Amino acid sequence: MARINDNYLKLKAGYLFPEIGRRVSAFTDANPDAAKSLIRCGIGDVTEPLPEAVREAMHAAIDDLGNRDTFRGYGPEQGYAFLREAIAEHAYRSKGVDIADDEIFVSDGSKCDTGNFLDILGPGNTFAITDPVYPVYVDTNVMIGNTGIADENGAYEGLVYLPCTAENQFVPAIPEEKVDIVYLCYPNNPTGATATREQLTAWVAYARKHGSIILYDAAYEGFITEDNIPRSIYEIEGARECAVEFRSFSKNGGFTGVRCGYTVVPKDLEGTTADGTKQALHPLWNRRMSTKFNGASYPVQRGAEAIFSDAGKAQVSALIEHYMGNAALLREACQELGLKVFGGVNAPYIWVGCPDGIDSWSMFDRMLQTNVVITPGAGFGAAGEGYFRISAFNSRENVQEVCTRMKALSW
Amino acid sequence: MARINDNYLKLKAGYLFPEIGRRVSAFTDANPDAAKSLIRCGIGDVTEPLPEAVREAMHAAIDDLGNRDTFRGYGPEQGYAFLREAIAEHAYRSKGVDIADDEIFVSDGSKCDTGNFLDILGPGNTFAITDPVYPVYVDTNVMIGNTGIADENGAYEGLVYLPCTAENQFVPAIPEEKVDIVYLCYPNNPTGATATREQLTAWVAYARKHGSIILYDAAYEGFITEDNIPRSIYEIEGARECAVEFRSFSKNGGFTGVRCGYTVVPKDLEGTTADGTKQALHPLWNRRMSTKFNGASYPVQRGAEAIFSDAGKAQVSALIEHYMGNAALLREACQELGLKVFGGVNAPYIWVGCPDGIDSWSMFDRMLQTNVVITPGAGFGAAGEGYFRISAFNSRENVQEVCTRMKALSW
Repeated sequence: MARINDNYLKLKAGYLFPEIGRRVSAFTDANPDAAKSLIRCGIGDVTEPLPEAVREAMHAAIDDLGNRDTFRGYGPEQGYAFLREAIAEHAYRSKGVDIADDEIFVSDGSKCDTGNFLDILGPGNTFAITDPVYPVYVDTNVMIGNTGIADENGAYEGLVYLPCTAENQFVPAIPEEKVDIVYLCYPNNPTGATATREQLTAWVAYARKHGSIILYDAAYEGFITEDNIPRSIYEIEGARECAVEFRSFSKNGGFTGVRCGYTVVPKDLEGTTADGTKQALHPLWNRRMSTKFNGASYPVQRGAEAIFSDAGKAQVSALIEHYMGNAALLREACQELGLKVFGGVNAPYIWVGCPDGIDSWSMFDRMLQTNVVITPGAGFGAAGEGYFRISAFNSRENVQEVCTRMKALSW
Repeated sequence: MARINDNYLKLKAGYLFPEIGRRVSAFTDANPDAAKSLIRCGIGDVTEPLPEAVREAMHAAIDDLGNRDTFRGYGPEQGYAFLREAIAEHAYRSKGVDIADDEIFVSDGSKCDTGNFLDILGPGNTFAITDPVYPVYVDTNVMIGNTGIADENGAYEGLVYLPCTAENQFVPAIPEEKVDIVYLCYPNNPTGATATREQLTAWVAYARKHGSIILYDAAYEGFITEDNIPRSIYEIEGARECAVEFRSFSKNGGFTGVRCGYTVVPKDLEGTTADGTKQALHPLWNRRMSTKFNGASYPVQRGAEAIFSDAGKAQVSALIEHYMGNAALLREACQELGLKVFGGVNAPYIWVGCPDGIDSWSMFDRMLQTNVVITPGAGFGAAGEGYFRISAFNSRENVQEVCTRMKALSW
């Protein structure tokens, strides 16, 4: 009989956000009136309209498809040249970072890319992840067989967990042991922390020393408001030899439903084969995308291109200003409650210590009673216990209402 | 040092269509004038405008995203309910085939799905593929480690090849040995052949006897013109227990650049774990899609929904009629040349025997000299040697020109 992939059976009950969805549904089913005033600050999903420049470009692209002379069928699996060039130029080269057009691989989103990238990595690698962490990194490693089973705390055998705590400002210490692959995400989801140039320089030095690869998730780069915080791992000398960078239009451009992201694979990046021969990763990823993907939707790619137009840039700035204004209000409300507050300055997430004696999921349930959905820190890993995450993605009105409801809380 | 996935090094030089692209570029670079009159009948890519009903729906969806009240962010990873329901109803239930809405998983295309489906299957399975075959089935098995290395004919160790020849009308005989997973594609790419109800019934009986899974690719279902040819594997009694079906809007709806397809995973379908326990595949695929995918683009899903409106159905019929009219002309031209001609009646591909003494790639080069791109049969597998495939996806004018150029050929 056909065999299934047993690794899937090692996965815990549910991916975090579907689990939250189930709890929220149970609550609103039991309290139909509550559903009407429910405010979702859980999943980091944008709420404001897609920028006008993007919509105009998408409308025009759809019109292109209505005309035989401008119709486009299969596009390049790596993304259209117009978009790869716009990304390389505006997101990198114009900022002094050396990335070639053909080192950009356009996709239907960063979540897909971070999971799919494991396809081209071999067995026998040691993977390090921060704790707390975006659950997709962990679950995709479990699914592909890079881990053993989970212990009672949900930690998987075979993964190296790098605790991120208030003590280390949520940037993990460089590990003593050698790891082959390390996931870093800055500005961080879920903690909202950023890494300094010095910290990233130390990680790049570590990776080059050990021949490790850094999988750098920069999905929240657009939310950096402070000077001197690296926006790309490639701002660090030597990173082209040891890092892949994932970026997305989801959060800055409001593309969570439109779907577009990209992965940067520098041609200098190498791994080794079983016999120790060095092998560049660029052609492997190119082959992976050519064979298992057919390019992102043409109208979507035209929409993404418009993000880099003057109008698009201005509209994205306004969106980010809106969400970061929300973040400031949420920070303030939590501080007034006497809670420990992190993030929310260079990231759209506020990471908040739970009141004494209340654990993450209890805090989730407590907030749900006020018709507010947050994300329990423990859902991101054992070191997230005792924290919760509030997303700043919402209307101003909703955020003000959340602040009001929070200020009325007591324990 | 980080290890790469060595299986990628087993892949032959290039995925077929990029290889054709390279040869065409070399030719047109050397013959700049030829480029102007080049007609592409190689890759099966649609050429006619996207149906108006689809464009209207996509425009409206983009407008939805421009308004806070109708904005949609992350959608369900499995696809929006409106589309899953439309597919289950119009493509299956209204035709007497029992498929539930939540057995439909919407994706960004069938190529992705057929490759990704291997994620949830375990090691230790024996895979059978037809020969000739859509190269993606083979290459994705190589990449994930289900094969050994290729022999001098390009056949991979560990795969069971099922020859499809003129003698068996391009429908393979049921294998003597037990295989765990078998890929079947009808109407077939590349041969244009169809399978009869009796043939599919025999395959379903075989699969149920051995606990095998049929991966049934029905991407060309919309092109069936003859009565009594099964449009879905689920028309066969018992198929819900042994088959997954892949479908696409690419070819019937002109979605090759828009990107939308779907996979049907019946809840009755089971495999086994390492210890022999039965395990349904539906929750595994659901978990795979929830964790490694974020749903197809919202405007794209609205466009796909419009395929099932009355206007959409009429427009799709007109498109299919156009392409099948092309197919009839191409069949006729090949027959006039005295070549053996297959397909082109229930599929947009014509599968043609090369003139005596001319092999597939020589025929490709010969046709390229007349500024016509076809696909060499050998690119689809060893049994495709001696054949070439002509795609009927083109304007009528171009097809007529191809017919004229072909009729002028001699050897």
